[in-house]
Amino acid sequence: MFELGVVYRNIQRADGDVAAKLGTLGTATVHEAMGRVGLLKPYMRPIYAGARAHGTAVTVLLQPGDNWMLHVAAEQIQPGDIVIAGVTADCTDGYFGDLLATSFKARGAQGLIIDAGVRDVSVLTEMQFPVWSKAISAKGTVKATLGSVNIPVVCAGALVNPGDVVVADEDGVVVVPAASAQKVLDKAAAREANEGEKRAKLASGVLGLDMYSMREPLRQAGLRYID
Amino acid sequence: MFELGVVYRNIQRADGDVAAKLGTLGTATVHEAMGRVGLLKPYMRPIYAGARAHGTAVTVLLQPGDNWMLHVAAEQIQPGDIVIAGVTADCTDGYFGDLLATSFKARGAQGLIIDAGVRDVSVLTEMQFPVWSKAISAKGTVKATLGSVNIPVVCAGALVNPGDVVVADEDGVVVVPAASAQKVLDKAAAREANEGEKRAKLASGVLGLDMYSMREPLRQAGLRYID
Amino acid sequence: MFELGVVYRNIQRADGDVAAKLGTLGTATVHEAMGRVGLLKPYMRPIYAGARAHGTAVTVLLQPGDNWMLHVAAEQIQPGDIVIAGVTADCTDGYFGDLLATSFKARGAQGLIIDAGVRDVSVLTEMQFPVWSKAISAKGTVKATLGSVNIPVVCAGALVNPGDVVVADEDGVVVVPAASAQKVLDKAAAREANEGEKRAKLASGVLGLDMYSMREPLRQAGLRYID
Amino acid sequence: MFELGVVYRNIQRADGDVAAKLGTLGTATVHEAMGRVGLLKPYMRPIYAGARAHGTAVTVLLQPGDNWMLHVAAEQIQPGDIVIAGVTADCTDGYFGDLLATSFKARGAQGLIIDAGVRDVSVLTEMQFPVWSKAISAKGTVKATLGSVNIPVVCAGALVNPGDVVVADEDGVVVVPAASAQKVLDKAAAREANEGEKRAKLASGVLGLDMYSMREPLRQAGLRYID
Amino acid sequence: MFELGVVYRNIQRADGDVAAKLGTLGTATVHEAMGRVGLLKPYMRPIYAGARAHGTAVTVLLQPGDNWMLHVAAEQIQPGDIVIAGVTADCTDGYFGDLLATSFKARGAQGLIIDAGVRDVSVLTEMQFPVWSKAISAKGTVKATLGSVNIPVVCAGALVNPGDVVVADEDGVVVVPAASAQKVLDKAAAREANEGEKRAKLASGVLGLDMYSMREPLRQAGLRYID
Amino acid sequence: MFELGVVYRNIQRADGDVAAKLGTLGTATVHEAMGRVGLLKPYMRPIYAGARAHGTAVTVLLQPGDNWMLHVAAEQIQPGDIVIAGVTADCTDGYFGDLLATSFKARGAQGLIIDAGVRDVSVLTEMQFPVWSKAISAKGTVKATLGSVNIPVVCAGALVNPGDVVVADEDGVVVVPAASAQKVLDKAAAREANEGEKRAKLASGVLGLDMYSMREPLRQAGLRYID
Repeated sequence: MFELGVVYRNIQRADGDVAAKLGTLGTATVHEAMGRVGLLKPYMRPIYAGARAHGTAVTVLLQPGDNWMLHVAAEQIQPGDIVIAGVTADCTDGYFGDLLATSFKARGAQGLIIDAGVRDVSVLTEMQFPVWSKAISAKGTVKATLGSVNIPVVCAGALVNPGDVVVADEDGVVVVPAASAQKVLDKAAAREANEGEKRAKLASGVLGLDMYSMREPLRQAGLRYID
Repeated sequence: MFELGVVYRNIQRADGDVAAKLGTLGTATVHEAMGRVGLLKPYMRPIYAGARAHGTAVTVLLQPGDNWMLHVAAEQIQPGDIVIAGVTADCTDGYFGDLLATSFKARGAQGLIIDAGVRDVSVLTEMQFPVWSKAISAKGTVKATLGSVNIPVVCAGALVNPGDVVVADEDGVVVVPAASAQKVLDKAAAREANEGEKRAKLASGVLGLDMYSMREPLRQAGLRYID
Repeated sequence: MFELGVVYRNIQRADGDVAAKLGTLGTATVHEAMGRVGLLKPYMRPIYAGARAHGTAVTVLLQPGDNWMLHVAAEQIQPGDIVIAGVTADCTDGYFGDLLATSFKARGAQGLIIDAGVRDVSVLTEMQFPVWSKAISAKGTVKATLGSVNIPVVCAGALVNPGDVVVADEDGVVVVPAASAQKVLDKAAAREANEGEKRAKLASGVLGLDMYSMREPLRQAGLRYID
Repeated sequence: MFELGVVYRNIQRADGDVAAKLGTLGTATVHEAMGRVGLLKPYMRPIYAGARAHGTAVTVLLQPGDNWMLHVAAEQIQPGDIVIAGVTADCTDGYFGDLLATSFKARGAQGLIIDAGVRDVSVLTEMQFPVWSKAISAKGTVKATLGSVNIPVVCAGALVNPGDVVVADEDGVVVVPAASAQKVLDKAAAREANEGEKRAKLASGVLGLDMYSMREPLRQAGLRYID
Repeated sequence: MFELGVVYRNIQRADGDVAAKLGTLGTATVHEAMGRVGLLKPYMRPIYAGARAHGTAVTVLLQPGDNWMLHVAAEQIQPGDIVIAGVTADCTDGYFGDLLATSFKARGAQGLIIDAGVRDVSVLTEMQFPVWSKAISAKGTVKATLGSVNIPVVCAGALVNPGDVVVADEDGVVVVPAASAQKVLDKAAAREANEGEKRAKLASGVLGLDMYSMREPLRQAGLRYID
Repeated sequence: MFELGVVYRNIQRADGDVAAKLGTLGTATVHEAMGRVGLLKPYMRPIYAGARAHGTAVTVLLQPGDNWMLHVAAEQIQPGDIVIAGVTADCTDGYFGDLLATSFKARGAQGLIIDAGVRDVSVLTEMQFPVWSKAISAKGTVKATLGSVNIPVVCAGALVNPGDVVVADEDGVVVVPAASAQKVLDKAAAREANEGEKRAKLASGVLGLDMYSMREPLRQAGLRYID
């Protein structure tokens, strides 16, 4: 469950190389390799086109309209981390702007995933500090109520444990448990391996119907062609 | 994280008496006693007026449009349990109807919490089998892809572990971790204890401003009265 | 496609007895018998608990914020019809209230399905004139722009042709093409036939896992039980 | 604009008799009489079936997740008032429950209109204290930040000044400016006057097409009948 | 109604030149020329800025979370076609990615309109393969249940018949029935003809009030100017 | 309240220099300086990346699906104004396109804020005429029902009086009452003054925890660090 008012300083981070390789493969491939779980809801969108990020999770539980714990989280960031924040109630306020982004970047953060709003998006875009959020809003927040840092949190419908691998790109955000990261990477890499060959075949006009041998199963499922 | 294709048969259930007492106190009181966490999103609504339920959680992870695992879950239900189900993607299909309700009831289930749709709601209402869902829909589901039973699941934004106490009423649904159930009950009961006295005072015309001694903090916060 | 400014007076209505029998079976059973198509989106909700209706479709295409064509449609209603209305753009205005309901009822209408708002719901409830709508709103409408009556319309995502059977209850609304009504009825009735027996078995504690012989397919799909 | 941290104690209330008569006419009639303005958005729904209320507005500006000003507002309530509250950001938290309702009722409040959430709805229903809200949620609120009482507020898209007439029923909520209340009442009453006669005609089978002389304007607009 | 499990191979395509000319005129002009019908709901958005496409419709009916029929549809694509897909229930999964896009492109498809989600949007953007969708999501789909190809489908609230002209740009997506395409083109072209002149006048400071002779109708409608 | 059918020709505009300076500071800073009020709901988004605008408000009250009053408003625009429009009911139609934009620009308008839809967004983007809207839609509108110009309007949840300062950028839209504009500017400028220094500190690795002296208040609030 959610403990309030605690900061875990020593977390077990997934291997950085594994995280980097998963990042290169992208969310769609990683999510497939995980068995189609671990994806955040698709309302989470990057604040600028072309955003991509990956890292090990520093998790934050925020109170609605209160960004105090993002300042607390900043101290826990290590190079290669990505901050991922859930909120105890639906909120679209702008929790994060250019000053916090400057601080996070200085600490080595690779980006922010937040189930709420952000602001200063034109500056964040210039800085190329990638953020995935559910809203963009100039609405400011207070610093009054404690949440927690580095406890398990639910962000946009997905459970995240501190140290998990987070991969984010234009297709969304996926969370890979630290303990499964290597195994998921192996599957994802295998999946990716023959994509180039498939693409070439399809580009030459071969149909997926033939390449994937779908005609017989379709016939068995009862598909009828009518001229 | 989410394991697919597994059913845990031996789960540690919270104490049934504690669950019953938490159920009597209701979601608002329990949620306050927990420090204002553990609540499912407010889109989860009971299918009929006056619905109330509590129990120990049998958790289910469902695939979109597929209710196979609800049948698997039925076997794991013990009297006093409440079934709580998350889905790996947004879905409003009608996963649950009168036949499954008959089966769940026969097994001793106290109700269902499902982050998706249900159907046969007029029969469920007659049966007084309480369900909290995000939709009502006649859309049927298939039985083709595995999910899991009794793993940790995210349901409507809240993390639920098998055996946790679930309390549901017209105000919503709250999840109390099994390990904290007694402590939360103590706090909730204390909170409840002096509600009657407060209510009597307010009914007699005493203002919350005075009863809660708010006038001075309001003045210090800068509140001005203008005639 | 949508013709504007036309009223088709002679439509081919589905058989009234077939419509009545489909109405008795209810939306979930009918929708399953159709192969799980024909359902309106689940945001369509009855305005009062316990609402049920069925009939042959008089279709209406409305303009946003304009209920003129509902008056035109009234004349086309025959006893046993149900009016079903789509709108050319999203709109939640209250197109229909107690006066139109009085008129529709006098003409023999069984109810209204409208992809927009209605008002006077307390009077409609007293009258027990059932309506399924996407909103309740006191907002009135004008009578300025032509739509059409008895052309094919899209209502809440479903295609409806004039004369089709419409079945509506607390689970939603389903449309059965006139030409398929008898065939769908046969399938739905067959489906319903052994429900009582199934219900009795489940009530006695038999599991769906056994009644539906699911254990072997689950095993083959890889389901593992962990003690 | 919105002043923060102020409470206006002396407000000009609309005439109570006028408010009562507008309340009897209901939201749809009043809203039409106003020229189809003044309506709150239709997401504002009563917490129980059959809810109706009217009164003179005590306005409240709330901060997100903070119900402090509802306690401040309680003192400003006079018999016949209705409390209407806007929030500075979208929020579904449960700002109001049975204790505040007891206090409001003791002060003579006729109900609450709140662009946020409420809780304890089963008790509020027993008390028959009517509330129109955008959500029902057990989520509690803090008492930390000032808003205001009896300033102009925006609630669910409508501007409300303190002392305005508020009419609420199952069709929604409408605000009538105090200065226009008598004039709106006159129009609304005139509108209502001949409703009974119209209803009788329509019930006897007369069509709106004829009663409202629509056939000629429809013909001029180009309506074609096809046999 | 919707037939399941069928593929119509011989469809009557609208004239390609007409489709091309309609594509040049754009959705707003075409939609006006149709009498303001035929538009898909505005939640359908292009996946990249500047996307434009037009073509003759190959229609697809998909099952939720299942993209099997997109592979079946690929074989039916002829150069100049555009694929347009509805789903039997709300779904935001990523049905379509870079491999299918490669295949569709090789077949001569001009784009995809899908009432669901897509993925690999950064690659689709590089390929400049335009897609209009209701979501972007990395969530993958299965290949298990039959839908249909080249039957009438409802996509985002609009009815589409195979062979219809589809025009899509940054303002949305409009469907022109094949039988009306030439007539709509004529009207749209006439409408477009004097746009340049109007634009020049307005740019020189002439008011629409004068250019469109609105002052008198506004006065008759009762508009009052107050100094 | 909302008067219908009136145009106020002489409005008191806020000082243009003050508006310009507020525009430079941006919505987040201005909104903070106002005490966190005055912000439109975050569903209002610019139609192209990088959009920024500021000006004095010409207000418009529109009827749903009817853009007549935008033509009336055009005449009231003076150089430096920004047009801001509310609608009497939810509507996503495309009220505004390239012709109106040409006219508005010729009159000196700095942009448009509209709680509805717009179209011709590719041309508006080329023209660099900035618009903030709740939707993009090719759906056209009629010119049939009066609204008003330069009365107080509610736009996306915010009250706007004619002549108020409107500031809009990628973070949203904020309204500053004309009477408070100078005071808000002073506060906003003060707030901005030491941002550069703060940014430099944070960039050098200083933590907000230290720069803002948060450690002690966090400790007092009960924050615990766990190793």
